[in-house]
Amino acid sequence: MTPRTIQPFHAMAIGDAAHRLEEAGRDILHMEFGQPTAPPPKAARAAAEAMLRDGVKGYWESAQLKQAIAAMYRETDDLKVEPERIILTCGASPALALALMTTFQPGDRVAMSRPGYVAHRNCVTGLHMEAVELPCGPDEHFQLTAAMLDALDPAPQGVIISSPANPTGSIIPPKELSAIVQVCERKKIRIIADEIYNRITYVGSAPSIGTLTSDACLIGSFSKFHAMPGWRLGWAVMPTDLAETAHAYMSNFFLTPPSLSQAAGLAALGCTEELNAHIAVYRNNRATLLDTLPRLGLTNIAPPDGAFYIYAQVDHLTDDSRTFCMQLLHDTGVAAASGVDFDPVEGHRFMRLSFAVSEDHLAEALRRLEPWILSRAQR
Amino acid sequence: MTPRTIQPFHAMAIGDAAHRLEEAGRDILHMEFGQPTAPPPKAARAAAEAMLRDGVKGYWESAQLKQAIAAMYRETDDLKVEPERIILTCGASPALALALMTTFQPGDRVAMSRPGYVAHRNCVTGLHMEAVELPCGPDEHFQLTAAMLDALDPAPQGVIISSPANPTGSIIPPKELSAIVQVCERKKIRIIADEIYNRITYVGSAPSIGTLTSDACLIGSFSKFHAMPGWRLGWAVMPTDLAETAHAYMSNFFLTPPSLSQAAGLAALGCTEELNAHIAVYRNNRATLLDTLPRLGLTNIAPPDGAFYIYAQVDHLTDDSRTFCMQLLHDTGVAAASGVDFDPVEGHRFMRLSFAVSEDHLAEALRRLEPWILSRAQR
Repeated sequence: MTPRTIQPFHAMAIGDAAHRLEEAGRDILHMEFGQPTAPPPKAARAAAEAMLRDGVKGYWESAQLKQAIAAMYRETDDLKVEPERIILTCGASPALALALMTTFQPGDRVAMSRPGYVAHRNCVTGLHMEAVELPCGPDEHFQLTAAMLDALDPAPQGVIISSPANPTGSIIPPKELSAIVQVCERKKIRIIADEIYNRITYVGSAPSIGTLTSDACLIGSFSKFHAMPGWRLGWAVMPTDLAETAHAYMSNFFLTPPSLSQAAGLAALGCTEELNAHIAVYRNNRATLLDTLPRLGLTNIAPPDGAFYIYAQVDHLTDDSRTFCMQLLHDTGVAAASGVDFDPVEGHRFMRLSFAVSEDHLAEALRRLEPWILSRAQR
Repeated sequence: MTPRTIQPFHAMAIGDAAHRLEEAGRDILHMEFGQPTAPPPKAARAAAEAMLRDGVKGYWESAQLKQAIAAMYRETDDLKVEPERIILTCGASPALALALMTTFQPGDRVAMSRPGYVAHRNCVTGLHMEAVELPCGPDEHFQLTAAMLDALDPAPQGVIISSPANPTGSIIPPKELSAIVQVCERKKIRIIADEIYNRITYVGSAPSIGTLTSDACLIGSFSKFHAMPGWRLGWAVMPTDLAETAHAYMSNFFLTPPSLSQAAGLAALGCTEELNAHIAVYRNNRATLLDTLPRLGLTNIAPPDGAFYIYAQVDHLTDDSRTFCMQLLHDTGVAAASGVDFDPVEGHRFMRLSFAVSEDHLAEALRRLEPWILSRAQR
């Protein structure tokens, strides 16, 4: 009776081990999860404090927050999003699950890049749909292409697009993205666009796919740009024809997102300057890593055009990146994620580091990594 | 491509209308949702304040909270629950969805009482399973029986039990509950027990079904007894053989519950005395309603053994309880839920009132209800 269609998120094991070491007194440098170590904006915390004082609302969806998210799309992408199409969720993960449940049926085929975010594959298979993984390497800029999608026969019912991507940070070039949208329109492939990193870019930019089509589901989050991962607040913008069904799924499966987080999120939307300062730190960290890692022999790194990850090939050091990351943690206190979550085929040859940390944090991590990696390279 | 298998939660429409009237200056008495109007315990708010001050944790599952929930089962039910079997969720709704996804497959049949909680039916159908609704009236104490379950041919893969139930508040008598568990063991029917009201009882008691079987999924929540609905915190206790799959679903579909809520929830578990004071208010409200409503002609009321609802037959006043509740709201400012969410067949003849409100709030609601209902009865 138990479905065997879903894999665990293996990085959780590294995270757990890291926390246990920390509790035992070790100084751990967390870079295993995609969570900014910077605090949320001051105004966001103040808004939560105010609601705590005045009374935390019960089951509640903030109409103001939906309007503010719509205003954000207008401002950043010159994109019109009707607030009725916005579903507020407890983070981007349930928003993705909601979009999948609303849009597809069991048995439907949903294409995605490999490597890609672990929950893209696992939510699809966990809902008894088929994950059609398209292997993408340096030649494809680590992103699926219009030609790859067009070549699928039969055409899939859906595709998940993520640009910038997790774990690679790669961005789909604008011309390619337009071509993808055209294939999808021609073949009636529904797009779910995971856009939680699209305001964190270093090379080029990543406008919402909503600027190219009104048929896509757009997934957004307060966990990355707004530095509020533990607050569990995200959203989905649904196409008009699916909005009503999506609301029905939301009210039955999730009810409402946390009230304190909605109050804080509304305030955070007004803190762009404060949040852009975090991006400046990530930009410096990225430059430091792209300068330092090749000197440690890590020369094959996916292009981190955006997001805040280094996805590096480590197969000259290990043939099992899970064991490798666990050893790294125990020896140095640096927690990194193995590639196996993101790529079940090639991931054992890769590791992922989040650089959404302070510059000091990164410097200390590199100080510990350098001798450890150099010593392993000499074996 | 769009599934047409899920219904909206109709009470949301009453809730929205009520909020719009409120914003327009009307004095609204909310009794349409099952959310305590009492604030969460002081210590819970203080714990959230402390975490806000010290830094809100990122993606995080509180090991301490799992241990405290296990301790609670030990104390209230003399039940041993290993913390590894506990999945912390963003409320009971996602816990139910998680338990269903983990335990059943599309096409599986899941039995449940009708009337019953709207999301029981809708989550089952939304996941492409079949909801086998068992009509239950006064003769069955508004709860499915062992005989009804045993008579299903073929036997369903699962059953959802809820005692005390929403919308009726009825409790399954201990002997009947044992008989249900025996049928399920004999026919290998998995039980999902929605136990979010089991610490709110007036007639008899409602021990966890975990005291009778270790094969059931137990759903718990901080939204009802702990008066924290807007905090979105709940849990599932999974049977040993399903715990690993459930964790995989959790980490992919939901990641983690809100950090502030976990800190507050841990504190709330230590506030039983403060919370029992709310139950005393509900007990008084229940007595007031059972005394007053029959005088208004509402004589057919399901037995509110527990929870905090009155589920009353109103078919001498209307043949469409949705329109009736909307009219009631507009005329009096009292927001109540129509029965249609809870019973798609007979629900148009019922309405549900939550009495998880203050005694003053209830007195004012009855002051407004009395002339309105009496005038309608005379038509």
